Amino acid sequence: MDLKLAKTQFSAHVKSLQNQITEQLKIFDPSLELTEDIWERKDFEKNPGGGGITRYFEGELFESAGVNTSEIFGKIDPKFSSQLSGEGEELWAAGVSLIIHPRNPRVPTVHANFRMIQHGSKHWFGGGADLTPFYPHTEDFKHFHGVWKKACAPYNCYEAMKDTCDKYFVNKHRDNEMRGVGGIFFDHLSNELESDFKQVQNMSNHFIDSYFPIVKKRMHENFSKEDEEFMLHRRSRYVEFNLIHDRGTLFGLKTNGRIKSIFVSLPRRCSFHYDYNSKLNSAHKEMNSYYSPQEW
Amino acid sequence: MDLKLAKTQFSAHVKSLQNQITEQLKIFDPSLELTEDIWERKDFEKNPGGGGITRYFEGELFESAGVNTSEIFGKIDPKFSSQLSGEGEELWAAGVSLIIHPRNPRVPTVHANFRMIQHGSKHWFGGGADLTPFYPHTEDFKHFHGVWKKACAPYNCYEAMKDTCDKYFVNKHRDNEMRGVGGIFFDHLSNELESDFKQVQNMSNHFIDSYFPIVKKRMHENFSKEDEEFMLHRRSRYVEFNLIHDRGTLFGLKTNGRIKSIFVSLPRRCSFHYDYNSKLNSAHKEMNSYYSPQEW
Repeated sequence: MDLKLAKTQFSAHVKSLQNQITEQLKIFDPSLELTEDIWERKDFEKNPGGGGITRYFEGELFESAGVNTSEIFGKIDPKFSSQLSGEGEELWAAGVSLIIHPRNPRVPTVHANFRMIQHGSKHWFGGGADLTPFYPHTEDFKHFHGVWKKACAPYNCYEAMKDTCDKYFVNKHRDNEMRGVGGIFFDHLSNELESDFKQVQNMSNHFIDSYFPIVKKRMHENFSKEDEEFMLHRRSRYVEFNLIHDRGTLFGLKTNGRIKSIFVSLPRRCSFHYDYNSKLNSAHKEMNSYYSPQEW
Repeated sequence: MDLKLAKTQFSAHVKSLQNQITEQLKIFDPSLELTEDIWERKDFEKNPGGGGITRYFEGELFESAGVNTSEIFGKIDPKFSSQLSGEGEELWAAGVSLIIHPRNPRVPTVHANFRMIQHGSKHWFGGGADLTPFYPHTEDFKHFHGVWKKACAPYNCYEAMKDTCDKYFVNKHRDNEMRGVGGIFFDHLSNELESDFKQVQNMSNHFIDSYFPIVKKRMHENFSKEDEEFMLHRRSRYVEFNLIHDRGTLFGLKTNGRIKSIFVSLPRRCSFHYDYNSKLNSAHKEMNSYYSPQEW
């Protein structure tokens, strides 16, 4: 497999995933309104190129969701390129990135992304999927992690990627609290091109199974006002993570990325509290105890 | 005036302002519930010292508000201290910082802070006050700026401080949109100790006049659902500014500051939208046109 073919096929793969996930969202939430923006990159540093497809959803079940793909290429700042593997000023990157914020606090929020990057003679893949629940349905967390265990099994990479995820989606400024219950995350998969490509393709194909069965199981569950308040509180921690710590968001801000597409990750509604913990009931106290590394 | 006296008197001054502003909040909103936390600094880098008084409010008129003072001292990271005027590893800082988020979109949000810092042989003052309205009551913006013009008149500093404010409270990643209609801001006032002290004391005493007459005028005004949605949307821009750009917040995160007190600036409720502008009515379109430098 040569690099050119891998790039073409990876772009096609992420667009296919985008379509499959869009389809699932529509099946589960017929009320969903879709805004699709097909954009072209105008200012990727000096030498513009590429673009993307941003899909933003709002509905009764899924309060807000974004399922985006992009393929960009062009010259990057030499200061930035010198920090990367590879050589030269030209960078190419393609990926899919998604976030789903359900309205019902019994249905967890999910995020995933899968990307391929090429810089001179080097390529690497990154990505992952992580779950942010608001109710202590531990069997759901086991299901999510179980699917990713299975996805990782042929590559013997679950333990390492689970550990990277536990360490990444963390609000260091909130006593190292995780934003959710983790999943898998990998930043720099770079072995042999064809095997890397197939691994990421196979793994990313597990996303639908990791998440939508949980939606199906929980979407009709009744919830209380307290459950909703807890979710809105936890969403504020999500916002803190994304705006303060997330490398993807900071990369987008630094490289003059498409702000609307990047900020689609932020929830439609959220609540900042001075001190929420004093209001916790027992279910939410239990949930709070899971925002730290656990075996699932 | 020697340095020791200036420090003692500045600490007393900010506490007095904190009490006066607390008093005003209570007069305007008898429903207000106050949480007061008196905290001691435990981890200001190597050599802990000082503490603060955090007052957090929630009520019918003022949805959330924080009026905080602190006085901290101790050794700081040499990498950080070398970037500052003065010498040595010991830093002393005291100040008052406040934010008021009213529930009624016709009443603007306001922020102010005034601080004194001493590092070795150098001292400096910083601070300012800025208004974030959600409805185009331009006479209110003129009132706010008018009071600060008057406060600055003896020192001939309004133009420069207004300009600094216009350039500081800006979401660069949102096409340089300001978070509100500005006010005044100054970062490094450092001339003669006694005159600096008196200037900041006199100026900060204008805060109550700059803001509360606007509250009085607007607090009983009816508002629409659309007005509220616009406010919640604009509050998300406030969150973006505070978490991405605000030096005070980033300083607090870097120096292991008291997170609860720092994050009191974030609004109780806010809404992130993929693309709000398409929904704007004419009043909100007009308001949007004022989030850029204007003469008031």
